Amino acid sequence: MFSPDTYVSRRAELKKRLGKGLVLLLGNDLVGMNYHDNEYEFRQDSTFLYYFGLRHDGLNAVIDIDNDRDILFGDELTIDAIVWTGNQPTLRELAAKAGVGDVRPSSELKPYLDRARAAASPIHYIPYYRADHELKLLSLLDLQPGGAVPSVPLIKAVVDMRNHKSAEEIAEIEKACTVTAMMHKAAMKAARPGMKEYEMRAIVEKVAMENGMRCSFPTIATVHGEILHNHSYDNTLESGQLFLLDAGAETPMGYAGDMSSTSPVDLRYTERQKVIYDLQQAASRAAVAMLRPGVPFREVHLQAARTIASGLKDLGIMKGDVDEAVVAGAHAMFFPTGLGHMMGLDVHDMENLGEVWVGYDGEPKSTMFGLKSLRLARPLEEGFVFTIEPGIYFMPELTALWKSEGQHKDFINYAEAEKWLGFGGVRNEEDYLITSGGHRRLGPGIPMTTEEVESLKYS
Amino acid sequence: MFSPDTYVSRRAELKKRLGKGLVLLLGNDLVGMNYHDNEYEFRQDSTFLYYFGLRHDGLNAVIDIDNDRDILFGDELTIDAIVWTGNQPTLRELAAKAGVGDVRPSSELKPYLDRARAAASPIHYIPYYRADHELKLLSLLDLQPGGAVPSVPLIKAVVDMRNHKSAEEIAEIEKACTVTAMMHKAAMKAARPGMKEYEMRAIVEKVAMENGMRCSFPTIATVHGEILHNHSYDNTLESGQLFLLDAGAETPMGYAGDMSSTSPVDLRYTERQKVIYDLQQAASRAAVAMLRPGVPFREVHLQAARTIASGLKDLGIMKGDVDEAVVAGAHAMFFPTGLGHMMGLDVHDMENLGEVWVGYDGEPKSTMFGLKSLRLARPLEEGFVFTIEPGIYFMPELTALWKSEGQHKDFINYAEAEKWLGFGGVRNEEDYLITSGGHRRLGPGIPMTTEEVESLKYS
Repeated sequence: MFSPDTYVSRRAELKKRLGKGLVLLLGNDLVGMNYHDNEYEFRQDSTFLYYFGLRHDGLNAVIDIDNDRDILFGDELTIDAIVWTGNQPTLRELAAKAGVGDVRPSSELKPYLDRARAAASPIHYIPYYRADHELKLLSLLDLQPGGAVPSVPLIKAVVDMRNHKSAEEIAEIEKACTVTAMMHKAAMKAARPGMKEYEMRAIVEKVAMENGMRCSFPTIATVHGEILHNHSYDNTLESGQLFLLDAGAETPMGYAGDMSSTSPVDLRYTERQKVIYDLQQAASRAAVAMLRPGVPFREVHLQAARTIASGLKDLGIMKGDVDEAVVAGAHAMFFPTGLGHMMGLDVHDMENLGEVWVGYDGEPKSTMFGLKSLRLARPLEEGFVFTIEPGIYFMPELTALWKSEGQHKDFINYAEAEKWLGFGGVRNEEDYLITSGGHRRLGPGIPMTTEEVESLKYS
Repeated sequence: MFSPDTYVSRRAELKKRLGKGLVLLLGNDLVGMNYHDNEYEFRQDSTFLYYFGLRHDGLNAVIDIDNDRDILFGDELTIDAIVWTGNQPTLRELAAKAGVGDVRPSSELKPYLDRARAAASPIHYIPYYRADHELKLLSLLDLQPGGAVPSVPLIKAVVDMRNHKSAEEIAEIEKACTVTAMMHKAAMKAARPGMKEYEMRAIVEKVAMENGMRCSFPTIATVHGEILHNHSYDNTLESGQLFLLDAGAETPMGYAGDMSSTSPVDLRYTERQKVIYDLQQAASRAAVAMLRPGVPFREVHLQAARTIASGLKDLGIMKGDVDEAVVAGAHAMFFPTGLGHMMGLDVHDMENLGEVWVGYDGEPKSTMFGLKSLRLARPLEEGFVFTIEPGIYFMPELTALWKSEGQHKDFINYAEAEKWLGFGGVRNEEDYLITSGGHRRLGPGIPMTTEEVESLKYS
């Protein structure tokens, strides 16, 4: 945890911004995998972490603006429990670490909220994303299913505070990035023909664990990089294939790293692989060169898209005017994802609060294929932390669908594109911070050029 | 998956046993860790796995006894989804693997149940253990919170079927036990002074993953074996300490292994450690020697308890008549847990169905400290699979509590017991099957005697 002052001043700032009412912050509970007591590893809610820092289940909190009180609701362990768990810090001791002196039993939370409702004090809460949250909220506020109305002023205040990372947060994110880089280097060195994807996953996730961290999201470790949502690990790595890893570490405090790499299963990339890989690298460099305060990330995304479209035109896969192709969205057959997303206490930071607030500052999002997957578009500001992850994918299903619909046939040479089906996908991903003067990559970086990757594989 | 016949005949047997009505089996859904789409690794509900075998989220099933129909409810992927996920088997193809020909959209589940309720057909369901299950059940059956009434006839039928493992299930459990044994051997070889518990955990869990399995429960990897519910991994392994590992693998089909081992952080056990370790081993051997059909597991547990009490008396830690001490429950200060639990598709098999059915066949459970933690007590039957895991623990909080209360002072020599505080705890655990003639250990076994463990450490 940071020092108590950090949490005290964050809560004070939140109170100042909201002005009145009461903020109800629900902590996460444990979730059973296949029965109640066989639990998934606990993950605290990130907004709760941001304002209270405590990584313990069974806690809820109230930031009472009207009465200028921060209260932690939870129950002390019984002596029966302590027999099984050993001596643990008391709730009061934990609360002190978050700068909270007011600790009350869980049973007092609903009466406290009832009194606030009776006094017509607005109760602010954020959207829920777990069924246990929903049940808790319904019961605490006497709501019917579907009746919860999250507070937009709270969402906007939280998003604005969490979007601007402090120096101590950046240091914590760099720890996550350092271990994340180690995960990727371990994979590059290990990949070889005959291995299973689950063996690669094991090597990668072990690095997070042995450094006292966990994975910030489900690892993608695949020879089918063109499948974007791929959480199976059953394929065998074969000579001639590319291995795409998208994985990151999370520090004990909850801050994430998130990187992707694409390395050859063999010791070297083929010439054909180098062509696409180098184009992906060019898109990445073009994007990074633009990063500085004031630049809309939508423009950075489109610059990466133009770079990719231009390169694909050189290869005969795309055709026509590059700028027009990107405006029309034709490049999205090969680059259907967004260029990046905010990162912090969540790997997709505050996705539960709504990316229209986090990445768009309330501006409407495009519904066009490609752009609709862009999670970050707003002008960049100092303290923003986000990923840069252009990719080039040859997706059989999408290619067949668009061809059959005759989509973008002025910009896509389907006969040429089909020659690349089976190639897979290439993505590299790094994490960046916007500084007053421009930008800074977070963490030590991973081998990026084909030469760098090959030289690590040979080492 | 097993062959479709397995699932067809299991469902036929269940229908025969229940006779009438309809069984509603809810599959599990994905659960977000810190936002909706950052999901914990999916785990299907075990009873759903037993009757349908499908490891996919978003499925529910009805076994309609009155109309002799098995129906799978779920939704096919849209083309938009397939673009991101790649080509996946259709629901109809998946259902065929479970021997189901009747596949319907999720939206038809509630109307189907409504018609059954209108026809006054009993709807059987098992208890829920996840909030998403609860919400789903309330909505499907128009129930108020707390209004669900699980079906005891269904619970009893499921428990009886799942308690008796078939040959193909035993083969699957042995696969889990084989990898589980590898996890323990890796830990024994790796443990040394200066390592962190989280490094040990990383080594252990990597073995599960690199064999295409997952952990069947949260790993316990600690130098504080006396803390029974210990899921922190922050201690450093120090010379002179014991390292207790309780960890198991789960096969892709969902069958669990579960073993414990206690190895020295140094290359050898100290003489003091050997005394307690050997006593734990003696308790284990005494228990295993009794395993055969017809023997109540409560008696096996008590035999292990007497062995431990007798050994502790020899050491001057306990005193008085051993049989009387065990009847009184005095040994439970050192052996407060149960001797073992059923194991199968859940590591604590069917804990969600109630251990009074699984391990007690409906007989009441003791409320005495020690015995109240015994999950299995009923007479053993051919096909039962369970753990044998006696332990000896020196627990500071429990010792202080009982001493202050003057508990069992005729049987416990507190002055001597206190000399062992700081020793930690010893547990070894293996998995057994009841055969027609007696019993069989599942899996290849792990080094158990001090000599076996030491010789692996030196290797």
